Amino acid sequence: MPNLAIYDTTLRDGSQREGISFSVSDKLKIAQKLDEFGVSYIEGGWPGSNPKDLEFFQRARELKLRQARLCAFGSTRRPHTDVTADANIKELVAAGTEVVTIFGKSWDFHVHNALSTSLEENLAMIEDTVAYLKSLGREVIYDAEHFFDGFKSNPEYALATIKAAARNGADVVVLCDTNGGLMPWELAEILNAVKRAVSVPLGIHAHDDAGMAVANTLLAVRHGVGHIQGTINGYGERCGNANLCTIIPTLQLKMGRPVVSSAQLQGLTKLSRFVAELANIVPAEQQPYVGFNAFTHKGGIHVDAVSKSPETYEHVEPHRVGNRRRILVSELSGRSNIFLKAQENNIGLLKDHPQTKIVLQRIKELEHQGYQFEGAEGSFELLILKALQAYRPLFKLEGFRLIVEKRASGQLYSEATIKVRVGEKLVHTAAEGNGPVNALDNALRKALEEVYPALKKIKLMDFKVRVLDGADGTGSQVRVLIESRDDRKAWGTVGVSTNIIEASWQALVDSIEYGLLCGKLPELDDAKAVLRQLKGTEEKA
Amino acid sequence: MPNLAIYDTTLRDGSQREGISFSVSDKLKIAQKLDEFGVSYIEGGWPGSNPKDLEFFQRARELKLRQARLCAFGSTRRPHTDVTADANIKELVAAGTEVVTIFGKSWDFHVHNALSTSLEENLAMIEDTVAYLKSLGREVIYDAEHFFDGFKSNPEYALATIKAAARNGADVVVLCDTNGGLMPWELAEILNAVKRAVSVPLGIHAHDDAGMAVANTLLAVRHGVGHIQGTINGYGERCGNANLCTIIPTLQLKMGRPVVSSAQLQGLTKLSRFVAELANIVPAEQQPYVGFNAFTHKGGIHVDAVSKSPETYEHVEPHRVGNRRRILVSELSGRSNIFLKAQENNIGLLKDHPQTKIVLQRIKELEHQGYQFEGAEGSFELLILKALQAYRPLFKLEGFRLIVEKRASGQLYSEATIKVRVGEKLVHTAAEGNGPVNALDNALRKALEEVYPALKKIKLMDFKVRVLDGADGTGSQVRVLIESRDDRKAWGTVGVSTNIIEASWQALVDSIEYGLLCGKLPELDDAKAVLRQLKGTEEKA
Repeated sequence: MPNLAIYDTTLRDGSQREGISFSVSDKLKIAQKLDEFGVSYIEGGWPGSNPKDLEFFQRARELKLRQARLCAFGSTRRPHTDVTADANIKELVAAGTEVVTIFGKSWDFHVHNALSTSLEENLAMIEDTVAYLKSLGREVIYDAEHFFDGFKSNPEYALATIKAAARNGADVVVLCDTNGGLMPWELAEILNAVKRAVSVPLGIHAHDDAGMAVANTLLAVRHGVGHIQGTINGYGERCGNANLCTIIPTLQLKMGRPVVSSAQLQGLTKLSRFVAELANIVPAEQQPYVGFNAFTHKGGIHVDAVSKSPETYEHVEPHRVGNRRRILVSELSGRSNIFLKAQENNIGLLKDHPQTKIVLQRIKELEHQGYQFEGAEGSFELLILKALQAYRPLFKLEGFRLIVEKRASGQLYSEATIKVRVGEKLVHTAAEGNGPVNALDNALRKALEEVYPALKKIKLMDFKVRVLDGADGTGSQVRVLIESRDDRKAWGTVGVSTNIIEASWQALVDSIEYGLLCGKLPELDDAKAVLRQLKGTEEKA
Repeated sequence: MPNLAIYDTTLRDGSQREGISFSVSDKLKIAQKLDEFGVSYIEGGWPGSNPKDLEFFQRARELKLRQARLCAFGSTRRPHTDVTADANIKELVAAGTEVVTIFGKSWDFHVHNALSTSLEENLAMIEDTVAYLKSLGREVIYDAEHFFDGFKSNPEYALATIKAAARNGADVVVLCDTNGGLMPWELAEILNAVKRAVSVPLGIHAHDDAGMAVANTLLAVRHGVGHIQGTINGYGERCGNANLCTIIPTLQLKMGRPVVSSAQLQGLTKLSRFVAELANIVPAEQQPYVGFNAFTHKGGIHVDAVSKSPETYEHVEPHRVGNRRRILVSELSGRSNIFLKAQENNIGLLKDHPQTKIVLQRIKELEHQGYQFEGAEGSFELLILKALQAYRPLFKLEGFRLIVEKRASGQLYSEATIKVRVGEKLVHTAAEGNGPVNALDNALRKALEEVYPALKKIKLMDFKVRVLDGADGTGSQVRVLIESRDDRKAWGTVGVSTNIIEASWQALVDSIEYGLLCGKLPELDDAKAVLRQLKGTEEKA
C-alpha cells in the first residue's frame, strides 16, 4: 500500500463555489493552516486565470511551510501553439512552485466540443506540456479532466491521454470525475483498466453531484490509489468537491490509513470552521465529523442512552476530530435533557428539583415562540437563574426611542435615546449609530458604562438575524443571535420578536447582563458558582 | 429485482434534526406533498412519544392520500411487560394506521447498556410485539436498530433478532445503520449473511455520519434490497438520514430503477424546498440534484463550455429534477457570463454592445459591496435598465422617518412617516407596523397605492436578512433579500447596507418598481419587452 498524499484544492477548485471570493491574504492564511494541519500539497490557484492568483504566488514565497508543497495549476498548452510561447504556461512557470498541476482533456466529446480541436492535437498538447515542465525540473501532477466520462465514451482514447502524460514523465496521474456522475460500483473495473495501461502512481479527484465523492475517493484508495484531491468542507463548483473533512478522519479512524498525527486530526473541526469563516459561508451543520450537529443528540431516547454510554449513538469519539458532544433542549426533551444541558453549561441543577420542571416548561414555551438556546448559552443560563429566582436585573429600562431618517439626498441618520435606572441613578442619554440596532447598542453602553466600567471589555463578536417564517414578508418573526466575548470567555444570547429592534434588544440586554454577571465576580469562573453565590446571598438575606 | 418502495421518515426521524419543530399542520401539509410526489410510505410520527404526534394521526384521517400508506412508529414492548398492556403499544395501535413500524435492538451492547435487559428478553420483546401487531391485521415493518454494529459485535445474536421478527410475520425487515459508521465495502458480506438467515423482504435505513448514507443505500439496492428509508433533504439526528432527494434521481436516471413518474420527479426540487421552508432551514445550496448550486456555473471555462453544450459540465439535465441551470456573475466573470445571465433573465443584451461592459463593471462593484444577484432577478433587471439609461423611476422619495419606541411597560410602537413625489403629486403619509420595516412597507404602499392601484396585487412572499460579516457586531453590513409575487410572476430583489432599514428600503423599492414596471404593460410578459418598449419611447422622444 502506498503512503497516502492529501492534495488540497480549496484555494483553487474550492473557490469556484458560489459566494466564495478569497482575498490574497485569506489565501495565505488558509495555506498556513493547511500546512499546520498536515496536508501534503496545497494548490494555490491558477496564475494564468486572474491577477489575484498571480499575486498569491508572489506573496506565498514568504510563507514558511513546514511540509506541504505549494502547487500552481494550469491547463495544457493551447492547440497549435509552441508550449514555450503559451501565455498560460509562462505564467504557470513564473509562479515558481516546485510542483505544477496541469489538466488536460480525456473525453473525446470535450476535445471536439469545448476545445474544438482534433484528438491527435489534444494528445500532442498533453505530451508537450508534461515534457516541457519536466524539462524544467518540476514535479508534475497531471489531472485527467473528465477521465471517467471519457473512459465510458471512448476507453481507448481516454487511456491514450493518460499514457501520453505518463510516457512524458508525469509524477502522478489524477483521474477526475469532473461532473460528479460516477457511481462507486463503476470504479473498480475502470481502475483495473487504468492499472493495466500505466504504471505511474494514481490520484483521484471526485465531485459530489450524485453525493458519491467521498465514497468514490475512499473506494479508490482501497484499490491502491495514493493521491487524494479534495477541499475543506467540500467546497467547489456546483455540488462541490470531495470533502477532506470527511475523508481524512475516515481514513485515519476507520481504515487504518493515518495521514496526519492524532494531534493534527484534533485540529480538523477548527480548520473546517476557520475556512468557513474566511469563505464567509455558514458552516454546514449536518457535516460529518466536524459539523455543529455531528455529535448533537436531541431525541429523548438517544439522550438517555448517550448519558449512559456515548458509543450507543456515536460512531467515533468527537474529541478525536476536535468536535464536541451537544445535548439539545427541545419540546421533545425530558428532564434529563435539561439536566445534561445545565451540566454542560456548568450549572448545578438537580434532576428531581421541583424548579427543573419550571425551567423545562419555560423553555418549551420559549422554543415554541421561536427561541433557540443551542447557540445561546448566555440566555439559557440567565433563564435558569430567573426560573430559580436567583436573578437580579442590573438595570431597569424606563424607555428608549429610535429614530431613523432618510432625506431626499439619500443620507441616512440613526439615533437612539434611552432612559435607564441603575440602582438609584437615572441615566438619560443618546447616541448615533450606522443603523438602528447599532445606535441602540451605543446608547445602552453609554448609559451603563459609567456604573459598570467592565462593560468596556465586552465586545460583540457576531450578530446574526434569521427571519423565522418569511411568508409574512416584512411582518415576519425574526430571531437575533449575538455572540459576545470578554477577555475570559465567549457566550451567545438570543432574542425573538416580529420587531427586529425588540429581538435585538433582548439579545443585547442578555449579552451585557450575562457578561457583567460573570465579570463582576472575578474569583468565580462559571455560572454555577455565580448561582451558588447568589443563592448564598439570598439565604443570608 | 423487486419493485422498490420509498419509505419517507422526514416527519419522524427527520424532525430529530436540530432546529426542526414541525407543527401538526406542517406535518399534514408535508404528508400531502409526499403523497403527490409518489413515495410509498409516510412515517408520520411516534404516537407514544408526544401529544403532537398523537394529534397528527387523529387529523391525518382526513388526508386524502392517493397511494402512500401512512405508518405509525414505535418501539417493541418494554421488558417484562404484557404486550397488550404496554402503554406505547396501545398508543401505536390507537393511531389506527394500516402500517406500523416498530424498532427493536440488534446490538448486544445496546440490550445490556441502553435497555438494561437480557438478550433472551429482548428476543421475546421482538417476537411478542411483531406477533401481536400482526394478529391485529397490520402490515408490520421491523426496523432492526443498529443492525450493522450489532452484526459486527455479535453476528449470531444480530441475526437471531431479525429471525425472531421474520418468524413472527414481519412484512419487511429493515437493516439500520443507526450510528452511520458503516462503510460501503462492508455491506455485501453482511447482506449475504442476512439473506442466508431470513427470506423476508429487506429494507435499508442509513445515517450519514461518515458521509456514506447514499452510497450504502444504493449499494444495498444493487444487492437486492427493495425497501428504502430516508428523509427529504437528508434531515435527521446528528449528520442526518439518507437523502431521498439524492437517492431517488440516481435510482431513476442512472440505475434504471424508476420509483416515481417522470412528471413526479420534476417536482423533486419543489418538494425539497417546500420541506426546507416548513422546517425553517436554509436549503443546503450544494445539495446534489436539488440544491440552488447543483447546476450553477461560475468558473469562466465552465461557463463557456456549458453555453456550447451543457453536458460538458452537467451529469444530468437539471429540468428532469425540476431544477435549473444558473450562470453566476462574479469577479471571475467575463462578458459571456453577463450575456448568458441577461439571456437567462430574458433581457436582450448584445455580447459586444458597449453597454455590456458598463453593466459588468457596475455588477462587479456591487458584488464587491456584498450584493448578490443570484436570487434577485428583479434587482438585476432594474440594474441593466439603469445602466442602459432605459429606467424611469416611478416615484421620488422626499424623505422618511421611522420611530420605534419602547416604554417601561415593555410595549413597542413602530411608526413610519413618508413623503414621496409621484409625477406632479406630493404624498405625505404615515403608517404603523409590527416592526420598523413593516411600518415602512405599510407607509410606502399607502403612499403609492392611490396612483398605482396594481400595487395591491404585489405581495411580499419572503423576507431574508443575512449579516454579511458579523465580526463588527451590530455595526455589520447586512443583505436583505425580498421575494415578491403578483398574479403573474415571482421575483427577487436585494439591498445591502450597514443599516438594516436602508437595505430593506432598497429591496422594497426594487420589489415594487419591478412589479409595477411589468404589471403596467400587461401585453408584454418579460423585461426584455419592457426594455424594448422603453427604448422605443426614448427614440421617439
